[in-house]
Amino acid sequence: MEVLVPFSTDRPKSRLSAVLDPDERKAFARAMLRDVLDAVRAADGDSRVLATGPVEADLACPVDVDERPLTDAVNAALDARVDDSPEDATPVAVVMADLALATPEALRELFAAGREADVAIAPGRGGGTNAFVASHPAFRVDYHGASYLDHRRIAAEVGASVAVVDSHRLATDVDEPADLAELLIHAEADGVEGGDDGTDDDADGGRAARWLRDAGFALDATDGRVGVERE
Amino acid sequence: MEVLVPFSTDRPKSRLSAVLDPDERKAFARAMLRDVLDAVRAADGDSRVLATGPVEADLACPVDVDERPLTDAVNAALDARVDDSPEDATPVAVVMADLALATPEALRELFAAGREADVAIAPGRGGGTNAFVASHPAFRVDYHGASYLDHRRIAAEVGASVAVVDSHRLATDVDEPADLAELLIHAEADGVEGGDDGTDDDADGGRAARWLRDAGFALDATDGRVGVERE
Repeated sequence: MEVLVPFSTDRPKSRLSAVLDPDERKAFARAMLRDVLDAVRAADGDSRVLATGPVEADLACPVDVDERPLTDAVNAALDARVDDSPEDATPVAVVMADLALATPEALRELFAAGREADVAIAPGRGGGTNAFVASHPAFRVDYHGASYLDHRRIAAEVGASVAVVDSHRLATDVDEPADLAELLIHAEADGVEGGDDGTDDDADGGRAARWLRDAGFALDATDGRVGVERE
Repeated sequence: MEVLVPFSTDRPKSRLSAVLDPDERKAFARAMLRDVLDAVRAADGDSRVLATGPVEADLACPVDVDERPLTDAVNAALDARVDDSPEDATPVAVVMADLALATPEALRELFAAGREADVAIAPGRGGGTNAFVASHPAFRVDYHGASYLDHRRIAAEVGASVAVVDSHRLATDVDEPADLAELLIHAEADGVEGGDDGTDDDADGGRAARWLRDAGFALDATDGRVGVERE
């Protein structure tokens, strides 16, 4: 499946500015992007990054640059598909670049749902649209506000059937400091069984969690809730 | 499947005290409990409420009162099962009473996972253990701190195989004001197609979302993020 991965190169992850400086936010955003691309590849998806500017990294997949806001850039990509082959209802996926917890299993479930329904949506916590698959030619996006609700309405308006993918991993976009804890929790849990393979390479994903740990972040449960602390 | 639903009757949902007074928190907690019991029933589970005190509502299922803290009460129930029939490895589920977004589908997936693995866990956002199914006789709980990680370690220590259930709905325990938005978002999304059946009875679940709306809560996306406002 073709998978578009929108990625902001200019001021990524500004809501993490309380805990990461601008260069750190850029490096962390790139680590998350690479984790997402790894998971897409493992789920047999063909990624194409839709970036707002040149990406300073070898991503091993095509990168299209479109400076427009997210909604316009994604809709332009959807328009282009319909213009190129109006009869083609091959589904295309759009997966956000900050889904650092995305697993191949969760993405496979999304892709499968998108082959059955005209539109499959993985809602994000807070009402965003973290990932979707659309094959209906008239479906377009509007990422402003509670986009999950808007996308449900848009799908209903154009008569597209909808499947909702219920995944905590796809619902967790890493935007705020509390989300960093989520990333570290699941990285640690995945290490309980099987454990680390002892190598330091990045071939098995988990770059974003490793980047956080290398930057001194650790889980902190001292006040009863689980957050992060930095050394 | 037997499903224990722990429920605190004394000071439920204290982290919602900024937006709900004590009586409101009690009523809202009961509405969530009843939604959970409905979803369990629809998923062919047999609920037993494990309450810290008498519940002032007809829940249409057995209620055991155990005043001890959550960990002790759940472990006592697990102990009793093993004591009663040491050879019996019938799985038992423990599902928190504040999973107001739980659907029968998500619970069925949890129950199915718990029939395959010795322990199936649905982690909560923030590292909690929102629901689990255990058939391994030596598995016990410790709900303090990041209990999901502790439960993964406990399962590994007793040699129990583990399945992780990836569900946003089961990951969302309604604890804090931001979680109220999550409840209203998904209630509204479920209403986009099919819509309301026009009746005002509670037979179709959704009591907690309805309680919130009746109390004047509505989604608010004015600052770019989706939260709740109260009339």
